[in-house]
This record gives sequence, C-alpha cells and structure tokens, in this order.
Amino acid sequence: MNELVHTYGGNPLDRGEPLRREEATIERLRTAASARCLVFHKLRVGVHADHNLSWLSPIETAAEQTGLTLFLGEHDGVPHFALEWLDEVAPPGIDEFADCRLLAAHLTTPETGILAQARAQLDWHRRNPFCAQCGAESHPERGGQIRRCDACEKHIFPRTDPVAIMLIVDEAGGEHCLLGKSQGRMARGNFYSCLAGFIDQGESLEAAVRREVWEEAGIRVGPVFYHSSQPWPFPSQLMIGCHGIATHKDINFDSAEMADVRWFHRDEAAAALRQENNSLNVPGQMAIAHHLIRTWVEGEIQL
Amino acid sequence: MNELVHTYGGNPLDRGEPLRREEATIERLRTAASARCLVFHKLRVGVHADHNLSWLSPIETAAEQTGLTLFLGEHDGVPHFALEWLDEVAPPGIDEFADCRLLAAHLTTPETGILAQARAQLDWHRRNPFCAQCGAESHPERGGQIRRCDACEKHIFPRTDPVAIMLIVDEAGGEHCLLGKSQGRMARGNFYSCLAGFIDQGESLEAAVRREVWEEAGIRVGPVFYHSSQPWPFPSQLMIGCHGIATHKDINFDSAEMADVRWFHRDEAAAALRQENNSLNVPGQMAIAHHLIRTWVEGEIQL
Repeated sequence: MNELVHTYGGNPLDRGEPLRREEATIERLRTAASARCLVFHKLRVGVHADHNLSWLSPIETAAEQTGLTLFLGEHDGVPHFALEWLDEVAPPGIDEFADCRLLAAHLTTPETGILAQARAQLDWHRRNPFCAQCGAESHPERGGQIRRCDACEKHIFPRTDPVAIMLIVDEAGGEHCLLGKSQGRMARGNFYSCLAGFIDQGESLEAAVRREVWEEAGIRVGPVFYHSSQPWPFPSQLMIGCHGIATHKDINFDSAEMADVRWFHRDEAAAALRQENNSLNVPGQMAIAHHLIRTWVEGEIQL
Repeated sequence: MNELVHTYGGNPLDRGEPLRREEATIERLRTAASARCLVFHKLRVGVHADHNLSWLSPIETAAEQTGLTLFLGEHDGVPHFALEWLDEVAPPGIDEFADCRLLAAHLTTPETGILAQARAQLDWHRRNPFCAQCGAESHPERGGQIRRCDACEKHIFPRTDPVAIMLIVDEAGGEHCLLGKSQGRMARGNFYSCLAGFIDQGESLEAAVRREVWEEAGIRVGPVFYHSSQPWPFPSQLMIGCHGIATHKDINFDSAEMADVRWFHRDEAAAALRQENNSLNVPGQMAIAHHLIRTWVEGEIQL
C-alpha cells in the first residue's frame, strides 16, 4: 500500500533540532536575507487576496505589533518562521487573515503541513503561559520548541493528543460500515463520520479503538488494522486511522454522546463520497475519515 | 498478523465513562463490598511479600494517610480504584511498595495494564496541580479522569505523549537492522535499542519516524510500516512501533544525543534476543523494541 500523506501531514521542513541549541543561531536565521515567515492574528493566517499564503520577511515584519516569533525549521536552506501579529490591522503584504481550516483546500499539501505546525505551536504557547507543576509563569525557549518555567525551571514540551479514528465494518469482506453523528451542532442533518476518541492513559491504540466503539455504539470489535495517520491542528491532535471488524451487528449507542449510529451499505457510502447521496453526507478529502471510508469502498484494503 | 498485546497494554477494565457523570455513583462504587484498590506510595505500588499485587478495600483503607483516590473502571462488575497513601508506613495488607517497572515481569499482562493506567493517572495529577491556562489551582473530577480549574473552570485532560519507535532495516529483505545507544547513563556498555522520539506538533507518525532516524542516525528512510502499540507509564507515553526501510547505509549520527548508532546483522540480533551475545544487549520482552526486533529476526514480518 502506498503511504497516504493527508492534508496537514506534508510538512517538508527540517525542524533543525541542533540549530535550536543556541539562541544566537536562531537570531542569525531570523535576520537572514532568505528567511520568511507566516503571520498569524488570533490563529488566522495572513494571505493574499487570491488566498495564497503571504510569506513575509521576519525582520521587516518585526514591529511593536509583533507577539511571539517561532522558528519552524528549514527547507532548502531557507529558514521558516511563524510570527504572531497583535493588531487587527494587518501589516503590508497581507490582504486578510484566513481561517486555517477553510484555507487548507486552497493550499498544496506541503503548505498545509507548515500551516499545521505553525498553528498548533502558536496555539499551544497561547493556552499554556503558566507552569502546571508550580503555577508560575513560563517563557518560550529553543525558538518556541519548548517553554521553560520561570520559577521551577521545568522544561515544558508541546502537547499532542493521540486520537483513534476508525471505520468499523460488519465482518471480514463485509458490505456495511459503521458511521455515527455526534450530539451537538452536527446532530441535525445527514452528516455522518467515523467514530473517534482520545486515547486514554495506559491504553494501546487497538484497545482505544475497541473501547470507543463499545462506548459510542455498543459494538464489540475484533481485529483492528492500522491505516494511516494525520496531524490535526485544531488544536493539536494526532489522528491515528484504523479499520476494524465488528463481532456482531446490533447497535446500542450512547445517546448522551451520539445522536445516531448506523450501518451503511458500501454503495451508500460510495455515493456519499461522490457527494451524490441525498441521505448521507460524509467528511471531505481533507479528513482522514474520508480516506478510511474511500479505501474500504474502493477495495484498496482487504479486511 | 496476530495482534501483540504488550506489557502495560492488557488493561481489562471498562473505564465506565457513563458512571463518571455523577459523583454519587462513584462514591457508591467506592463503598461497594466488592470494590478493590491498588495502593501507591510515591508512585510505587503496594504488594505482598511474594510480589503479588495487594488488592485492598478502598473503604477499609481510607484514613488520614490517604491522598488521591481514582476510579479506574470495572471488570466483571467489580469496581477498581487506585489510592494514594501518604505515609512511609504501609497500611495493613501491604508488605512493601514496589517499583512499577521492576514489578511488571512478575505480573500477568492484564495486571500490568491496570498498573499502567493507575500509575500514569496518579503521576499526572501530582505533576499538574495548576492550570496552565491561568495559573490557578485545579482539582480532580469524574473520579480522577480529568481535572478542573478552580478559577477559569477549564476542563484539563490527562496527557499522553505519542512516541514513534522504529526498527530500520538496510533494504527490503535486508539482513541488517539499525540500533543505537543514547548519551547518558546507558552510553557505556553494549546496550542498544531501536531509535525513538516524541512525535511533534503537525507531524504524522510516518514523518516522525523519518525525522527521528535522520536526526539521530543521518539515515533517510523510505517506506514505513506500522507494527503495534504499547502504553508506557513512565510517565505516560503511547509507544507506536514501526518498521522502516533505509535508502542508504552510511550512518552519520548526532553525537550530542547518541553515543553510537550501528548496523547489526540479523544473526547478531537473534543471539542478543536469546541473551547469548556478549557484544550486544537489547531490551527485554517488556519493551516493544524487543518485539520490533524479534518479529523481524524471526521473519514474522516481511519488509
């Protein structure tokens, strides 16, 4: 099977681990003539009017309105940065600040990868200004790769939450797959997706798949097969995609969490992927769920 | 391929998501006649003189010396708890507090799974008493499944860090694998293991495998294959095990991080797994690294 590189997963940057060991090196890279940066305002990214990313010079963009500056890494010798812009009025060279989720469809996969790293890292710094160990303030180090507590000096590493996301089929070689819709704003309408949930402490990927499907659908799962993974920067998950085979068909879903869980026939799922099914909408190509469904529908994977 | 259930990965408990919604339900479970708990002191677990786990009654153990009490889940209708004991002197029914890593070899896989959940959760509570968002104190909720900030009321979820760990072989069907030893206390001697590292924000599993092998060994990796996963509660990682195929053989390792990185022949690795190789020691069966090496050595997986 060829490896699927998902949206947000194609980051071409070398994160430059050894370069981060000296603050002077990062400053040299930031002021290099070739250096370029993405500029963010409230986690929206600066773009041109045609929705292409605006790459600016970090040194020319630096101003009173600049917040955090993060070193993302290098590609072909070009240092890449992300910079936070505090003012509502964008700096010259930026026409608007765009939503990172809506924008992804307009970008190349490598661009979505850089965007994912930048957005996840900026968000993490903004949501974690304090040390959870002692409650004191912390500050960024190593070009924003980590934070460090001002009081207890603890190194604080960025957080990435592993999530299991799975397409369950009714039996080996089966013709039906299990999709659900959550309670909440998506509960109305025909939007169904793969079941998913955070992997708990002291739990393997496979155990998490089985627990989530049991909790959300009342279905027991036998064999589990890894498929592919996708970073998801809202705020910072690692989506780990699997297929699994159910041991029975009777659903008993948890109505506190789920609005509906149902078996759909392969043909219904196929029509939904082509957006030709009025009674079923599924996630688009940006989401790993789409590809878990598609590879099963198209028989690319044999379960 | 049959699924490998690793040490620390065999947790049989149903974590009882719906039971956690009412504090009164958790209290009813804690005081149930069948309820049982593991008792921890400074992250060491209470055992009998024969190194079997000591299961006590949470209600009988409750005392002034009791710290946190966590609801772990249920198995066959029996509620399981973990309880923190603050005094050096163990309560009746416990002969000693044992190291959770050394002890694992004496336990069944389901027992190691419960131990992993309990230790990881207790440690997380102890290392995260404050809210990283606002710096105020936080308190446990839902039987210890989450914490909640006293000031900003944010829900704080336990943290599990995904780690990529990989056995790289020299070519498809190749006869050599890549093992390394880190700088630090393991740098002397003949102890080598798989390369490994934390998955970064905005990075897929496969990208993390390639980045870590490039950073640590200077080797480029082509195809990557998922193998299995293992929860590792020191303090709380999800080890995601992979095999990968190198695109070349010349190593250029990072001496700041690694003391040595080397290709070993399949026969050398096989002897090391049997502990019959004086010049190479590898991790034991408790570690996923052992099984990444073993399944390749034994030809269970075809790369």
